[in-house]
Amino acid sequence: MMELAPQNQPEQFTVVTPVAPIAVARHGSRAKCLQRLLRLGLNVPTTLALPFETVRRITEGQMPDKAAILAQFSAGALVSVRPSVEGADWGGPGAVLNIGLNDARHAELCTSYGVEAANTLYLRHIQAYAVHIARLDPELFEDSEVSDASVARALEMYAAEAEEPFPQDPVRQLGDALRAMARAWDATTARLLRQAKGAPPDAGLGLVVQEMALGFGPGESGSGVVRFISSITGAPGVQGRYQRQSLFRDALDGSGDAIFLGEDPRGVSLESEAPQAFEALLEASQICRRGLREEMEIEFCLENGALRVLDAVRAPRSARAGLRIAVALAEDGVIPREEAVLRVAPHGLSELLHPQVHPDARRDVIASGIAGSPGAATGKLVFSANAAQAAAAQGEACILVRRETSPEDVRGMQVAKGVLTERGGVTSHAAVIARGLGVPCVVGANDLVFSTREKHLSAPDGRLFKAGDIVTLDGTTGVLLAGVVPMIDAALDASFQTLMGWADEMRDIGVRANADTLAEARVANTFAAEGIGLCRTEHMFFEDPRMTVMREMIFAQSEEGRRSALERLLPMQRGDFIALFSEMGDRPVTIRLFDPPLHEFLPSDRQGMLQLAEGLDLPLSDVTNRIENMREFNPMLGLRGVRLGVTVPEIYDMQARAIFEATVAVSKTGKPVVPEIMIPLVSARREVELVKTRIDGVAAAVRNETGAAFDYALGVMVETPRAALRAGDIAGQSSFLSFGTNDLTQMAYGLSRDDAGRFMSSYVEKGVYPEDPFHTLDEDGVGELLLLGAERGRSVRPDISLSICGEHAGDPAAIAFCRSAGFDYVSCSPYRVPVARLAAAHLALKDPAK
Amino acid sequence: MMELAPQNQPEQFTVVTPVAPIAVARHGSRAKCLQRLLRLGLNVPTTLALPFETVRRITEGQMPDKAAILAQFSAGALVSVRPSVEGADWGGPGAVLNIGLNDARHAELCTSYGVEAANTLYLRHIQAYAVHIARLDPELFEDSEVSDASVARALEMYAAEAEEPFPQDPVRQLGDALRAMARAWDATTARLLRQAKGAPPDAGLGLVVQEMALGFGPGESGSGVVRFISSITGAPGVQGRYQRQSLFRDALDGSGDAIFLGEDPRGVSLESEAPQAFEALLEASQICRRGLREEMEIEFCLENGALRVLDAVRAPRSARAGLRIAVALAEDGVIPREEAVLRVAPHGLSELLHPQVHPDARRDVIASGIAGSPGAATGKLVFSANAAQAAAAQGEACILVRRETSPEDVRGMQVAKGVLTERGGVTSHAAVIARGLGVPCVVGANDLVFSTREKHLSAPDGRLFKAGDIVTLDGTTGVLLAGVVPMIDAALDASFQTLMGWADEMRDIGVRANADTLAEARVANTFAAEGIGLCRTEHMFFEDPRMTVMREMIFAQSEEGRRSALERLLPMQRGDFIALFSEMGDRPVTIRLFDPPLHEFLPSDRQGMLQLAEGLDLPLSDVTNRIENMREFNPMLGLRGVRLGVTVPEIYDMQARAIFEATVAVSKTGKPVVPEIMIPLVSARREVELVKTRIDGVAAAVRNETGAAFDYALGVMVETPRAALRAGDIAGQSSFLSFGTNDLTQMAYGLSRDDAGRFMSSYVEKGVYPEDPFHTLDEDGVGELLLLGAERGRSVRPDISLSICGEHAGDPAAIAFCRSAGFDYVSCSPYRVPVARLAAAHLALKDPAK
Repeated sequence: MMELAPQNQPEQFTVVTPVAPIAVARHGSRAKCLQRLLRLGLNVPTTLALPFETVRRITEGQMPDKAAILAQFSAGALVSVRPSVEGADWGGPGAVLNIGLNDARHAELCTSYGVEAANTLYLRHIQAYAVHIARLDPELFEDSEVSDASVARALEMYAAEAEEPFPQDPVRQLGDALRAMARAWDATTARLLRQAKGAPPDAGLGLVVQEMALGFGPGESGSGVVRFISSITGAPGVQGRYQRQSLFRDALDGSGDAIFLGEDPRGVSLESEAPQAFEALLEASQICRRGLREEMEIEFCLENGALRVLDAVRAPRSARAGLRIAVALAEDGVIPREEAVLRVAPHGLSELLHPQVHPDARRDVIASGIAGSPGAATGKLVFSANAAQAAAAQGEACILVRRETSPEDVRGMQVAKGVLTERGGVTSHAAVIARGLGVPCVVGANDLVFSTREKHLSAPDGRLFKAGDIVTLDGTTGVLLAGVVPMIDAALDASFQTLMGWADEMRDIGVRANADTLAEARVANTFAAEGIGLCRTEHMFFEDPRMTVMREMIFAQSEEGRRSALERLLPMQRGDFIALFSEMGDRPVTIRLFDPPLHEFLPSDRQGMLQLAEGLDLPLSDVTNRIENMREFNPMLGLRGVRLGVTVPEIYDMQARAIFEATVAVSKTGKPVVPEIMIPLVSARREVELVKTRIDGVAAAVRNETGAAFDYALGVMVETPRAALRAGDIAGQSSFLSFGTNDLTQMAYGLSRDDAGRFMSSYVEKGVYPEDPFHTLDEDGVGELLLLGAERGRSVRPDISLSICGEHAGDPAAIAFCRSAGFDYVSCSPYRVPVARLAAAHLALKDPAK
Repeated sequence: MMELAPQNQPEQFTVVTPVAPIAVARHGSRAKCLQRLLRLGLNVPTTLALPFETVRRITEGQMPDKAAILAQFSAGALVSVRPSVEGADWGGPGAVLNIGLNDARHAELCTSYGVEAANTLYLRHIQAYAVHIARLDPELFEDSEVSDASVARALEMYAAEAEEPFPQDPVRQLGDALRAMARAWDATTARLLRQAKGAPPDAGLGLVVQEMALGFGPGESGSGVVRFISSITGAPGVQGRYQRQSLFRDALDGSGDAIFLGEDPRGVSLESEAPQAFEALLEASQICRRGLREEMEIEFCLENGALRVLDAVRAPRSARAGLRIAVALAEDGVIPREEAVLRVAPHGLSELLHPQVHPDARRDVIASGIAGSPGAATGKLVFSANAAQAAAAQGEACILVRRETSPEDVRGMQVAKGVLTERGGVTSHAAVIARGLGVPCVVGANDLVFSTREKHLSAPDGRLFKAGDIVTLDGTTGVLLAGVVPMIDAALDASFQTLMGWADEMRDIGVRANADTLAEARVANTFAAEGIGLCRTEHMFFEDPRMTVMREMIFAQSEEGRRSALERLLPMQRGDFIALFSEMGDRPVTIRLFDPPLHEFLPSDRQGMLQLAEGLDLPLSDVTNRIENMREFNPMLGLRGVRLGVTVPEIYDMQARAIFEATVAVSKTGKPVVPEIMIPLVSARREVELVKTRIDGVAAAVRNETGAAFDYALGVMVETPRAALRAGDIAGQSSFLSFGTNDLTQMAYGLSRDDAGRFMSSYVEKGVYPEDPFHTLDEDGVGELLLLGAERGRSVRPDISLSICGEHAGDPAAIAFCRSAGFDYVSCSPYRVPVARLAAAHLALKDPAK
């Protein structure tokens, strides 16, 4: 191909010195980092930076002045070329080493470092050059024996295949390397990969040309890579390898000659062999850490005991390691606390809250689904809630498998270690409940053939997994693995607590938890939620003996019959609230009154109906007719929420009494409890008025009976579009409005989250919706309803408390939205509380003005 | 009781003269009407009006000056007292006659009019006085023989029971009458009744005291009531009765002595007996009609041939009679056309459009439900759509009974004469479809026990009605009647056409019809709809053989399989559109693309599934599994509408092709057709873009294949709250927005209309919702979404066409709302089109500024 004349623009390259004009935006981060290392006084070999512009011109055929580049280095020096790009994880072409190595230099090296080292270097150079630059068949150069003969063979093979002798001119070698790297950056696959990581389409490639430090020769000579923390836990500790008589990253190639760095019971170490060199390395790392304000992974070379630092990159790390590093840097005064908080990504926290599959574990994947709830667990397969309870009773860990879950499965989910469903998406019943419980969950695993009746799963590869087989469910990545898999524990350690404490000092929006049970309230407390923002009382009724009494209530023919059943539920419900109030102390608890349609409590199969008929002493046909009559076309849009409260007011009466009696009981023993009672599914002001009148009446009765004074707040869950539009009306009767964004999203879109799974992924793929609106708050539509509701509510009652309590409440974007709308708090599932606290701190730090 | 001194305020009463200050708001309408009769020069006896204030004081114990009142009349005259209130149908106490009649006057009457007449009068006076004023037991005064002895018996009985002699003093009689009437007006029941008719809580009672004209004596003497139109049809014709030697309304008491007024083949008439008197009556009636600008019912008396007019009220009339009268008055130049249009209440029109149970028919009510669709029909009971079709095939009229209807029942509803369901409200599937078809329908008849399996209905009174039994369904009042009942026909006569023509000239908002079939389009044409605003294409697929092909399409495993089934549907669908376009000529047709979830087309019972498995040659388990898999929790919020269009685009492709091929075919034979294609259930702009791209592609292909040019419009059915909020986005891709207020209401409230029936009536009773929002557009909530959508759509595309096509579109209040929002048209079910046209005219007349 034709090569144009060398470029004559200024700044084709820059020698990297402490004062040279090197910028990440023009030269990439590696060049900048090397400059910083120089500024820190570290012994970095001569380095040149080629800016993006120079490399761009190479792709257009305009070469920089290669001879001028080589002229910057010692005569006869070998040089490496490495990519230097803006983004840390945008990738880039592989390094090209040993440029300048030719027959003549080979002969010199034989003299200075010995024949073996020289042959090794030259052979590897010819091989790499042939494969990566001349693009010859790699198989032809696979010779791993190193000898004079193998070098000669490689040179012959190169000549035969490339139809020219191996290039001897260093200038030619450099030019070929630059051109190959520029082209590799331009390849479509590479571009798509980096764009997927957030790189812009026109992201530039810079190159760093560095004089190679060769770890060969007399004294302590070799090369290695070191970091001073664990990538998995972030704990301090010397990690890395060193290999004598080697260069670059040879120590990591697993050939077995590498040694440990610090003293190690497993074998020889640099520290024991060359304590001074190790001390220098330690010192350099400390300089790096303080100077670059980060834990780095350092590439180094020892030349006769002298340390040279070739490169340094941010040490790779898991989310938990990242948190621990950030806290340590702040505690050591290297960075301010604010920066430590900002360095931890909120969404990464969920990895810390649950056990995870060990990153290095072998994974025998049975099938993939959608990551429904993070964490991992191992257990035996069970195919029903009953089986899960039976297993739990015997102390056996189990993974519950269902096609989809319904409220009847909740008690099974509470005791299972993990939940797997065939259907549903991230906001299906299974996923929502599992996240609330902190149980790992994979949903929508429709690669598997589920036979819950025959109690087995068929994997796509034909394997059959039966009840009792041991599997591991990874809810973080959404896969099911065969057998037992090594795990790492949850990391709710001191670093975590410290960071969350800092975050709490910085944030300016409240974070509460959605918690229905005492167990969930305890988790909420563990995660320092500022209260319970949503306690769904109906989950309290799905367990026997309550379920049976609920059914009696539903089947009662009269108000008296219902009242009599409800009276039996009263002490149980009061007990629930006593436990909750006691657990939460002086933090507020928002109790949502009964919400679901009553038919959810009725059996759906013949067996269950028969049992119910026996229990109620009714003919089976009465029971089946009654159940058939209660069936709804669209239960989501049916007789539930406040509609039940208005048409069957005895239920709310009982709940209000339970709440107030619990309030009196718990207030006796500590600070006064001020319960917050929330009315669900409101669409008109009058609904609130009617419920408020009755609840006020119950409160008066309880005050009268007990002689105790207490206060309470009454508010509305805004989850119909109409309630948002009429928030002004409703606010007149409400001390707080809490937006239930799940239902609000369903109704704004006319889309049931239980049914959306069927097409949501196709919709998001086609860009019909930019995101699943059940996962990411739809700011344009649902968000406008939130803003309208907030504004109208506040216009009538300026001090009204505003919050959201839907699934979105744990999502940083939604928290940002609520914060800028001036909401008082968000309430999310307990395991999302840390995420929300941290995200809120980020928002306050990034946009203090609010 | 203590009687206070007579009032000394001015204007305790006013003598009614042409110039006296009589006002409806102070004296009531009867007093005002009598004054108008005087002004017209009619011979009205001396009349006094007691204003509301005077009567109010009576209830407080302050009597007007009774002697002064009586002093206004001829000495010894008898007087009547009648109520005079503001509202025409607010009721009022019964008239008190013959005040002043006592032993002395009786003796005089014996002389002047004969003993029999005098005895009759006196006896009736004592009886009425005893029962209505002295409140004695009516049974004691039931003597119907008239003689000296019976008069004496009545006087004795009165003295014995009332413990005082029958009052002889006319002043005392008048006082008693005034007090009794004032108290009757004040009674709770009377107040509640008139408030139900719209009277305010403080509605006043005026009284009219009139000198009695006694139709006794020599020459042509007697009394009667006359009107000159038929109350049922409004057709001209003398109606009423006259009775010689009688007074007041004796002619109507059915005693048999009354004669006809005009010549009548059935017997003697006033016209033949006393032509001059009759002529005078005719003349008076014409004076009344022109002077009062209304058809009146006149109460008159002949005294020796001389006509006296005692009272006149607006002639009672059915809705159809009212229309005919208004048109006739306008055609005769008595009132302007605008007034004629305003005099006909839009909601009354539906009575004209369907046969009705004759007002005078005997009604043997089996049970009541909710009036779902107006009109009445007689037929034999059938309990399935198949049975309805079988009956229709044999030419037998039938009433289809279902617990509730589903799309599978539509073909049965199309052939049935009436539909009865156990469940649902005015916007249930049954009611909506029935109104569209113009079939009488009663829904929510849950007084009846439905046994559709055993094919019988149990009435609340225990009667059992079996399949084949003849019943009459009255959808206008919402009752089921036993047996055959006399009917009156629909009244789409010349008067109706004339009035509707006038209304069309006056209105300024368009009216289209929702029509899915050729039959409905013909009805729409009959009612002069300006086009079809909503053609729901899915109803076209519920009939075999289409249903079978639909099911094959649904069960196809691949796009090719679906396409192959759709290719077979294409010619049928094209045929549908050719028929529709041809029927509608140059009026626009808006076709909504396929909307319902596919599972609606699948059988729900085992038998149907078995047939389907056989038809598709698949194992039954495949079919049941597939159907089970397609089941949705909330079908209303599931995979339907544009979501199907995006995920299974072949269906819309086929429909677009059918529409365009029909466009080309019909345009060849007449004016070019410009179809309007409407996309249902949109919630995001991208949905519209995706569908638009494909439809544009199909249009290009059809243009290319046929070589024909054609235009079409693409628009969106706005039925999710999000679509309304994002109407600006969506308008960029849409030539029109049509608001589907049914779904919009469902989603704004989070309330399924199919499930709302369970509690809606209780909700409306308790005032939770002021009205059923599916019946009356919720202007505060849903209305705001309409306004926001309209404003945002127009801001992006100022010429965008705006309309509503939900059930509300036929409701005058909703039409007013749309008109003031500047909508282009409303589209309602065909049988609501006349109502909408008339309502629109009313709006334009009442608020011309718009």
